[in-house]
Amino acid sequence: MHRTHNCGELRIQHVGTKVTLAGWVQRVRNKGGLIWVDLRDRYGLTQLIFEEGSTPKELLEKAASLGREFVIKSTGTVIERTSKNDKIPTGDIEVKVEVLEVLNPAKIPPFLIEDETDGGDDLRMKYRYLDLRRNVVRQKLQLRHRMMQETRKYMDGQDFIEVETPVLIKSTPEGARDFVVPSRVNPGEFYALPQSPQTFKQLLMVSGFDRYFQIVKCFRDEDLRADRQPEFTQIDCEMSFVNQEDVLSMFEGLTRHLFKQVKGIELEEVGRMTYADAMRLYGNDKPDLRFDMQFVELNNLVKGKGFGIFDQAELVVGICAKGAGSYTRKQLDELTDWVKRPQIGAKGLVYVKFNEDGSLKSTVDKFYSQDDLGQWAEAFQAEPGDLMLVLSGDAKTVRKQLSELRLKMGEDLGLRDRSVFKPLWVVDFPLLEWDEETNRYHAMHHPFTSPKAEDIPLLDTDPGAVRANAYDLVINGVEIGGGSIRIHDRTTQQLMFKHLGFTEEEAQKQFGFLMEAFEYGAPPHGGIAFGFDRLCAIFGGSDSIRDYIAFPKNNSGRDVMIDSPSPISNDQLEELSIKLDVKAD
Amino acid sequence: MHRTHNCGELRIQHVGTKVTLAGWVQRVRNKGGLIWVDLRDRYGLTQLIFEEGSTPKELLEKAASLGREFVIKSTGTVIERTSKNDKIPTGDIEVKVEVLEVLNPAKIPPFLIEDETDGGDDLRMKYRYLDLRRNVVRQKLQLRHRMMQETRKYMDGQDFIEVETPVLIKSTPEGARDFVVPSRVNPGEFYALPQSPQTFKQLLMVSGFDRYFQIVKCFRDEDLRADRQPEFTQIDCEMSFVNQEDVLSMFEGLTRHLFKQVKGIELEEVGRMTYADAMRLYGNDKPDLRFDMQFVELNNLVKGKGFGIFDQAELVVGICAKGAGSYTRKQLDELTDWVKRPQIGAKGLVYVKFNEDGSLKSTVDKFYSQDDLGQWAEAFQAEPGDLMLVLSGDAKTVRKQLSELRLKMGEDLGLRDRSVFKPLWVVDFPLLEWDEETNRYHAMHHPFTSPKAEDIPLLDTDPGAVRANAYDLVINGVEIGGGSIRIHDRTTQQLMFKHLGFTEEEAQKQFGFLMEAFEYGAPPHGGIAFGFDRLCAIFGGSDSIRDYIAFPKNNSGRDVMIDSPSPISNDQLEELSIKLDVKAD
Repeated sequence: MHRTHNCGELRIQHVGTKVTLAGWVQRVRNKGGLIWVDLRDRYGLTQLIFEEGSTPKELLEKAASLGREFVIKSTGTVIERTSKNDKIPTGDIEVKVEVLEVLNPAKIPPFLIEDETDGGDDLRMKYRYLDLRRNVVRQKLQLRHRMMQETRKYMDGQDFIEVETPVLIKSTPEGARDFVVPSRVNPGEFYALPQSPQTFKQLLMVSGFDRYFQIVKCFRDEDLRADRQPEFTQIDCEMSFVNQEDVLSMFEGLTRHLFKQVKGIELEEVGRMTYADAMRLYGNDKPDLRFDMQFVELNNLVKGKGFGIFDQAELVVGICAKGAGSYTRKQLDELTDWVKRPQIGAKGLVYVKFNEDGSLKSTVDKFYSQDDLGQWAEAFQAEPGDLMLVLSGDAKTVRKQLSELRLKMGEDLGLRDRSVFKPLWVVDFPLLEWDEETNRYHAMHHPFTSPKAEDIPLLDTDPGAVRANAYDLVINGVEIGGGSIRIHDRTTQQLMFKHLGFTEEEAQKQFGFLMEAFEYGAPPHGGIAFGFDRLCAIFGGSDSIRDYIAFPKNNSGRDVMIDSPSPISNDQLEELSIKLDVKAD
Repeated sequence: MHRTHNCGELRIQHVGTKVTLAGWVQRVRNKGGLIWVDLRDRYGLTQLIFEEGSTPKELLEKAASLGREFVIKSTGTVIERTSKNDKIPTGDIEVKVEVLEVLNPAKIPPFLIEDETDGGDDLRMKYRYLDLRRNVVRQKLQLRHRMMQETRKYMDGQDFIEVETPVLIKSTPEGARDFVVPSRVNPGEFYALPQSPQTFKQLLMVSGFDRYFQIVKCFRDEDLRADRQPEFTQIDCEMSFVNQEDVLSMFEGLTRHLFKQVKGIELEEVGRMTYADAMRLYGNDKPDLRFDMQFVELNNLVKGKGFGIFDQAELVVGICAKGAGSYTRKQLDELTDWVKRPQIGAKGLVYVKFNEDGSLKSTVDKFYSQDDLGQWAEAFQAEPGDLMLVLSGDAKTVRKQLSELRLKMGEDLGLRDRSVFKPLWVVDFPLLEWDEETNRYHAMHHPFTSPKAEDIPLLDTDPGAVRANAYDLVINGVEIGGGSIRIHDRTTQQLMFKHLGFTEEEAQKQFGFLMEAFEYGAPPHGGIAFGFDRLCAIFGGSDSIRDYIAFPKNNSGRDVMIDSPSPISNDQLEELSIKLDVKAD
């Protein structure tokens, strides 16, 4: 037997017990004839002690020779510590060692295995198995584990059936780029890896499964950005005989269950906001509601006063930053530079300081009187000590810019506390969005999302105005997941494909099986998918999903630890009936 | 709202309640001015009733026009049935309908949606979503769901952490053929889909995760046989600081938990049998212990009596089929034909009937006296009424043949009851097996399996005799899973690769990351993987895994429902830097 206890469980009541522990050497201290070894495993840290005089010399030497990260097994007696450590649960005791065995020595690790490490990103990716040894990293994956178990417990409790949908499926032109898998048995043909189990979960509804869920890997061969992974995990769900409100309340329930069980937080009720309102009030379909700072539109106050920039702008809109009236000239200049950065792209920033003495000081005093500015302040519901920040331009662009500025102000003013969670359902998304590149409408959500019944007539006259039965869950400005009530009849589905620019033949070839399924008795149904990696990151208070994935890939889609992707043999290529066709750069 | 109740929950106490139900029309009966509609959903069946006179004419006509599998929604009042149906839980009541809405009509299904269907395999695969609508099929997936939940509950309760390992990994030459995925970002390079998360779970042990599990999709591009799928699911587990007995007892615990929770069966304790004994006594490393019929070796009784076939055979071995002494001549001839079929390949069958009068009648009476046969009978512990069946030949072949015969006799004599479960651990597998084709040793389990310490010296002198710390769980003659205690030091791992015919360079290139990991403090570890599809099939009392997979592929690896694999576009090929290279047949 390798151990009687783990390194986290011995307490004062174990004093006198003979125990065997196994684990990793965290630290060896050698002082005044005493040697202490901190022994670590997943469960905790236990101090081993060796004492000149009472410990045999050979054993003392062996202890002194231990290096960091050696794997050892040691037997001894639990004794009470003379100086206790109340920072760790085992701090009242130590183990007086009688037998010590080195199970495996260790080379000096390339970086410190401590909460604060000296290893850079690249090195920690290459030795991910050592990075995972750090408590702070392992705890993130333990959080993920807990989230998975609690998700399944809730879904099972609500009569959802977990069904594994296939990974080797069929490539479709809609959506992001597919990863494909050449078929050996069917030369010249390919499987694709799923971007989501969308069609399968809808077929399960046609099958009468009624409630389906799965925590499932999905794949997108997109150009990678920071915090995007080629493979990612979804909580994927679908329900039959439901309307939108049924789905929202079910998954509000899941969200509240997770917060309660995993973080001990009673989440507030999740409000609803239309997409239109979210864009108007926050310039963003995923507003961070941890702070207010709503947009105030100023067109009817600012026009016609001789300030050309505002006069020519489609939209003049601003925010009021409470208490930021104390910003210095330098801070305000920096803010102006910030909005002018190419990433934001504003031409300039107009601000109005509401001084403590009641006076108003703006960058456009030349055009606007104290009275004018007073009207602005009223619109902003500003008070002395506040700072009003105003941008202008075409409506879509300026909303986006002001949204960024709002988030920055929230950050700078300490309003985006990671221990506070503000959830929101954004509803009534547009069904379609115009794509400049391909010069046609794309499905904003996906082609299976149903339009609002009352908006269907608009499909022919004003497609961009058609609203969908689609919804997103947003927490703290992060999109956690989204879904929709689906189309469940062939006629509407065909109409939808037509509006997306599919020929009848294309639609039939790609999605004929689904449309045919709709003819054999498809129930009304809808569902949702949560981005599980992101949900874990939000719960862990982190912006990056990468730490919540055991073996992530880097920004080139490469696993630097195992060195993948990599070339394969000519035999393999030949068996798969493919050849390389690599262009010289 | 689409429904107030589901189709399985109304009882006599609901009489008088106004309800709305939704579901599929199972059957419409129209008799004597009454129309009954059986409404079905996942939860059950409820009878709707329409009555001439009290039901408005329009509604009656609507009801009469309903077809099989129409999706409807109907509101009415629960009434007590005049003639109750005690075969279904809702059989005491019916719903007198007041409002009926067709949510979606249905074409006539291509086969009957009943427990007994008229649809052939191919048709049911193409319309899998309709096949899944049948109760008997859906219940199999519900069993699978329950098995998944209970597996996770047990593992979580035992402090195992569920970790998702990557799907896009690296192709390795060891084991079965990999499915590969061309990388667009890294032209000329490929990911591979995992045959198992083996190296990742070992790295998690190096990371100190201590106990890992995952229910995970794995992939093998093998030539398909009946009941083999290119993608399949494993319960994958690994533990640190354990010996073989720790692993066996943990996963015996899982198995017993599943039988208890899912089937209400208290499984008997799982015995252990060495591989050598299993081969000697059952000719098979996965013996079906639902019946006895152990092999009896007869060499020392049968040689030198002038029967050349036995004299020349390496092994003469038989079984005693209790009570089969009543087999007719015709049955015995059929049995002889059966063992001579090419699939079995025996040259002939010697049998001895132990007649009720105590006399012995054999096919080799010419060579063996009643006394001789009496000695055989004693060796077989045979009694009047029994039938002894004897095969001969080279040991390996004849054991295999007799194993098949034993299973057939067990089947024919009704000894393989699907409601009886006999589990067994087979232990002490050989480390290596000789492969005639490649003329070298292969790892019987995989290259990471540790040899028994005491057998390591044999590696150089008699590699085939080296036993591994490897084990399989067998239930009813089916291999449910297997595992091993792993190598956890670089030296032994290198030695192993050497014996498998790897050059040092190849070993380093393919598995360098793992061997390097072993140098940074790898704990002793071991694990197991259960074939989850097969485990579900066993629990469901079925031989075929296909029914336990929601969307299986056919024997050509094709999903005939979505028609995959399929050609991809030239643009896709170009982006992936590959070309087709399909040879004309």
